[in-house]
Amino acid sequence: MSTLQYKPGGSFPVVGILGGGQLAKMLAAAARPLGIRVRILAPDRNQVIEGCFDDVTIADWADPEAVTAFAGTVDVLTVENEFVPVEALEAAREDGNRIFPSPETLTLIQDKFIQKETLRKHNLPTAPFRAVESPEEAAAFAEQHGWPLVLKRRHMGYDGKGNATVRAAADLEAAWDRLDGSIYPLYAEAFCPFVAEMAVMITRFPNGDTAAYPVVDTVQRNHICHTVTVPSAAPARCRETAAAFAVRAVEAIDAVGTVGVELFRMDDDSILINELAPRVHNTGHYTIEACACSQFENHIRAILGWPAGATSLRAPGAAMVNLLGDADGSGWPSGMDTAAALPAHVHLYGKATSRKGRKMGHVTALGTTPEAALETARRAADAIRFGLA
Amino acid sequence: MSTLQYKPGGSFPVVGILGGGQLAKMLAAAARPLGIRVRILAPDRNQVIEGCFDDVTIADWADPEAVTAFAGTVDVLTVENEFVPVEALEAAREDGNRIFPSPETLTLIQDKFIQKETLRKHNLPTAPFRAVESPEEAAAFAEQHGWPLVLKRRHMGYDGKGNATVRAAADLEAAWDRLDGSIYPLYAEAFCPFVAEMAVMITRFPNGDTAAYPVVDTVQRNHICHTVTVPSAAPARCRETAAAFAVRAVEAIDAVGTVGVELFRMDDDSILINELAPRVHNTGHYTIEACACSQFENHIRAILGWPAGATSLRAPGAAMVNLLGDADGSGWPSGMDTAAALPAHVHLYGKATSRKGRKMGHVTALGTTPEAALETARRAADAIRFGLA
Repeated sequence: MSTLQYKPGGSFPVVGILGGGQLAKMLAAAARPLGIRVRILAPDRNQVIEGCFDDVTIADWADPEAVTAFAGTVDVLTVENEFVPVEALEAAREDGNRIFPSPETLTLIQDKFIQKETLRKHNLPTAPFRAVESPEEAAAFAEQHGWPLVLKRRHMGYDGKGNATVRAAADLEAAWDRLDGSIYPLYAEAFCPFVAEMAVMITRFPNGDTAAYPVVDTVQRNHICHTVTVPSAAPARCRETAAAFAVRAVEAIDAVGTVGVELFRMDDDSILINELAPRVHNTGHYTIEACACSQFENHIRAILGWPAGATSLRAPGAAMVNLLGDADGSGWPSGMDTAAALPAHVHLYGKATSRKGRKMGHVTALGTTPEAALETARRAADAIRFGLA
Repeated sequence: MSTLQYKPGGSFPVVGILGGGQLAKMLAAAARPLGIRVRILAPDRNQVIEGCFDDVTIADWADPEAVTAFAGTVDVLTVENEFVPVEALEAAREDGNRIFPSPETLTLIQDKFIQKETLRKHNLPTAPFRAVESPEEAAAFAEQHGWPLVLKRRHMGYDGKGNATVRAAADLEAAWDRLDGSIYPLYAEAFCPFVAEMAVMITRFPNGDTAAYPVVDTVQRNHICHTVTVPSAAPARCRETAAAFAVRAVEAIDAVGTVGVELFRMDDDSILINELAPRVHNTGHYTIEACACSQFENHIRAILGWPAGATSLRAPGAAMVNLLGDADGSGWPSGMDTAAALPAHVHLYGKATSRKGRKMGHVTALGTTPEAALETARRAADAIRFGLA
């Protein structure tokens, strides 16, 4: 594969993105200073953040013709959502278009059972799991691995959606029904008594090179990323293992571009891989201010075949706090006067409306330690309210 | 004046900019992560960089009706070019619109003789100057202050345009004619044998607060900013004097927003003010990566009445090198493969076409010293060529 995709004296590279939410917005913000144009294809104008892109096509991303036509107008096609239908991407690629992550990578990710199988095949540790076709099979899995177990849909699960923790055999039928196990394929996973959640962003390049960002600690609230602190407080050995596993995982799915790798740290300091997202990721937003080259810029560099940018931290510590909607209302919050006076970087995504729990923005702060950074980011985040006039 | 201009639970702030070039692009890049919308009014679609703004109105910015109508669609109106006609801005403000810099500030700046008079009135040192209405008056000025003198148009001078250095009385008539002194008002300035050129970016807020960026050293080539290094290598006393003069100069013109102050350092380490630009400025582009809050973000904060962001350096040294067009051709250069592999931040403005000497982008680098940063930025800049296929 060639390195640079531009022609000297030629025209500005154009990146196409399926999806126009905050991840696409931040990709565009990284691309534009480099003179790169960004075009969006999204199924619904209401899901596209206004004013952030060179142009927007509204079309069904499951439609091979629409995706192929769109891909023909860009130099490389990428996604902000790993659940886009693979068939349309395959059609677009057969038509000669460059697509990263590849349809093969997405196929290995979209079915979480296949994703875990892929990790197992590459000797990467995960919690015990198996595909289950009935509550009885799930019960048999629990007999082997203990209760509670986590029942999960194989497809379309994110931010805790499509998951159910089952504490005892008596609760299994209800959980099976709630997940519509008769319709959707499920798998069972042993409940994982981790002591901490960690994440690593890796950018992989077409030549196989990888650039790894520092290992972060994450705290989830209601299954949604709440805070990120970096560097992780885990012992150096854990961090090294986590980073090494993350690189191997990204190689296992043959990803090109930025990938978020979520991991568990167990009480014996062993590391398990939780899951992969072959795209820029909430746990990597801190890289915008904390690293010379953000996860977004490195994704753009990778998919265009450019060289990697530096991933080291520019401060001893950094932290990010997500801003979620408090209630229905405007996408513009109260409290920006207080937040803007603090040494924190407030990002508002510019979504037209707030809903309770919707990702509306995030705050990043740098500091002399991760804890000091988190304290600053929290103060700014605590000041901001969406939908509470 | 109130502080924050947003209404809790209200709508996204909208900033309007007269002009849609690289300064407007970088203002928009600073505004967008804060959820702020940016609208442009420009006289010519070809002068607007594509894909950077929420919307673009093509209209004559000298037309009071057009500017007033545009101002009515935004929360605050600002400029990327200090030479926009003041009359239209005055009309827009009379209609109740918020405009920074104010028409009064622009009036004190646009006529460079008035600008210098304003500085003199505030006991701020400049090279000797006087308005001249004939070559004879210019000759009399030179008799008093020595040769060479610099003959300058009072209006519309920038990047060395509208200036002529006159070495002897015999050359005066020719210079006068070249500057069309019979049509355009001129003034004479003593040639200033400076040892170094310096600049300071100041952001002034509606409540009178000022935020000062570090003093930089600048090197001009063909009257255009070529490199910036920061912190300035001048003795601390010179830097302190330069910063203090810059704050007083910005107060003298009652600016709100970011102002570029250019200064001369003389061989006795005294400091003279060269000129003011009441807008974001080429010598402050380094602040995007080198400071927590860039000159662009602080301008947006100031004109919206928000609190100031931090202006201190995030690295021991930083440097910027301008990228100028080498020849007619594409706005997309050759050499990005080499430049992108270096630890530098390449900014390409995305202008459709290159012309010899046109500002096409810039490169910023951070380093352990200003000199190390300059070396890195230079290597990246040296790799990039516009219009030489």
